[in-house]
Amino acid sequence: MKTNHCKIIDCTIRDGGLVNQWDFSIEFVQDLYAALNDAGVDYMEVGYKNSPKLLGGADQAGPWRFLNDDFLRKVIPQKGTTKLSALVDIGRVDEADILPRSESMLDLIRVACYIKDVDKAIELIEMFNERGYETTLNIMALSNVLETDLNEAFEMIKASPVDIVYIVDSYGSLDHNDMLYLVNKFKEALPNKRLGVHTHNNMQLAFSNTLIAAENGVEVLDSSVYGMGRGAGNCPTEALLTHLKNSKYSLRHVLPFLTKHMIPMRDKWEWGYLIPYLITGTLDEHPRSAMALLASSERDEFSAFYDRMMTPEAGFAQKKPE
Amino acid sequence: MKTNHCKIIDCTIRDGGLVNQWDFSIEFVQDLYAALNDAGVDYMEVGYKNSPKLLGGADQAGPWRFLNDDFLRKVIPQKGTTKLSALVDIGRVDEADILPRSESMLDLIRVACYIKDVDKAIELIEMFNERGYETTLNIMALSNVLETDLNEAFEMIKASPVDIVYIVDSYGSLDHNDMLYLVNKFKEALPNKRLGVHTHNNMQLAFSNTLIAAENGVEVLDSSVYGMGRGAGNCPTEALLTHLKNSKYSLRHVLPFLTKHMIPMRDKWEWGYLIPYLITGTLDEHPRSAMALLASSERDEFSAFYDRMMTPEAGFAQKKPE
Repeated sequence: MKTNHCKIIDCTIRDGGLVNQWDFSIEFVQDLYAALNDAGVDYMEVGYKNSPKLLGGADQAGPWRFLNDDFLRKVIPQKGTTKLSALVDIGRVDEADILPRSESMLDLIRVACYIKDVDKAIELIEMFNERGYETTLNIMALSNVLETDLNEAFEMIKASPVDIVYIVDSYGSLDHNDMLYLVNKFKEALPNKRLGVHTHNNMQLAFSNTLIAAENGVEVLDSSVYGMGRGAGNCPTEALLTHLKNSKYSLRHVLPFLTKHMIPMRDKWEWGYLIPYLITGTLDEHPRSAMALLASSERDEFSAFYDRMMTPEAGFAQKKPE
Repeated sequence: MKTNHCKIIDCTIRDGGLVNQWDFSIEFVQDLYAALNDAGVDYMEVGYKNSPKLLGGADQAGPWRFLNDDFLRKVIPQKGTTKLSALVDIGRVDEADILPRSESMLDLIRVACYIKDVDKAIELIEMFNERGYETTLNIMALSNVLETDLNEAFEMIKASPVDIVYIVDSYGSLDHNDMLYLVNKFKEALPNKRLGVHTHNNMQLAFSNTLIAAENGVEVLDSSVYGMGRGAGNCPTEALLTHLKNSKYSLRHVLPFLTKHMIPMRDKWEWGYLIPYLITGTLDEHPRSAMALLASSERDEFSAFYDRMMTPEAGFAQKKPE
């Protein structure tokens, strides 16, 4: 397998934060950064760089949702070889919060958007690019995108300064054929861009789809330790570390972190393969309905859930309030 | 995907029995048989047809380890369209226990063996074949087999009456490239045989490897409900039912069984992706050392376990007893 060209972005803090509402201790983040450095992981995504005044809720969520350079400098006083990354959402970034890269702890800023907002994402990317950051564009929910809309987006992306364009399987609904199809489509449409992949494990295909993408030319692979990520979780960092043919990667160096932090974390919070996630994955739906079910007292009522998901007329009568 | 040719063998009782020492109630097995019928599953493996006098331990293990036709007839008084299968091990079968198929509840008998015992397996298969059963030969631990031994086995298998030859990833150590390699090798060497696949989920690749095999001509796919099987478990039946393009398969019809039986079962017994299984999988080792670790008080000491597995000189000094 020719995968020496790949780079790993560990998203535990960012995507895993969707599981535990960013309830990560500073020690957890420091230990993870040390482990990822030792294991040879290329990037660590330390959270979201959204602006609290544009999103609200800064009080409820931990600092990892609203990354602040001063804070980050205290958490990671000494940077190693693992670069730092943050994700931003369209409409939630205040330009005034973004330092030039030379003054920032961050190396890479990733912009996540739905297909209809690719123009807005590119505007942000241009700003980050001017300030010296590496950039990625992560088009979410690709499995729900019409090809005509995607082709239109490709034209804009090709002309933009973005470094890496992501194939994001937000719903965990892609199999290896779908992945191969998208990789080839992206490669053909964007010959001047590098590609990345972000998978979800609803159908137990996150790791496999990531390997298929890597083998077919995708260079940047998202993962998280013990697969911790929204819903069914992500491709496990530890699986990539042991499987990719790259002598700098080491499974051994993330094992103490798994023992110390991830086993207690998994005791407290839930992610990974569960039947409701299989159902939303196979139906190519956002996992939010599965997450709501799992948080309710009917969490194991799979048949009723499936029937609701399969009933087009299900919903609420639209009576106006009196 | 052209997978309409595939058949599913649900191994929950047989391989899952390795998790809970065959502690399945009669109601569990009856409900599973009904669910598999409704869901369109082709075969249900109801256990082992080993002979208690050749293996011992019949008192400790449930009846599913030593299947008896009279008992089976009481459990399943009315057979549906789902056929019944049993596994036997070399040296543990008493010919006198094997009824002709016309008098038996079983349709399919599968013989599992290591490569060195293929001759003995074929002898058994000839007997089962004469008595009217469909047969499979399951060569275990293929990832540890020398090609020269495999080629020798192929010659014997080609001349035998066995119907289906299995690719068995006992250690959960194969990725999609390994699987494709083996499938092509088996297809080329055994043009007169149908092929089957049995996977383990140590690296979260069981479902993916099964799909890769199916897509490349393997016809018979092993799985178990909620993936219940030894160690990291198997390819989940429910994932195959929803993903294979075959109108007779129905995910919906196994959901009540999952709710009623598998959620309580998983609360009581442990199987599935765990770090020690990833370690034995990636090292291409039998999972028994991982199972021993997980049953001990050091179950989460992953680094020490990894170091032991990586140390060729580890072991015990061989002092003779005085």
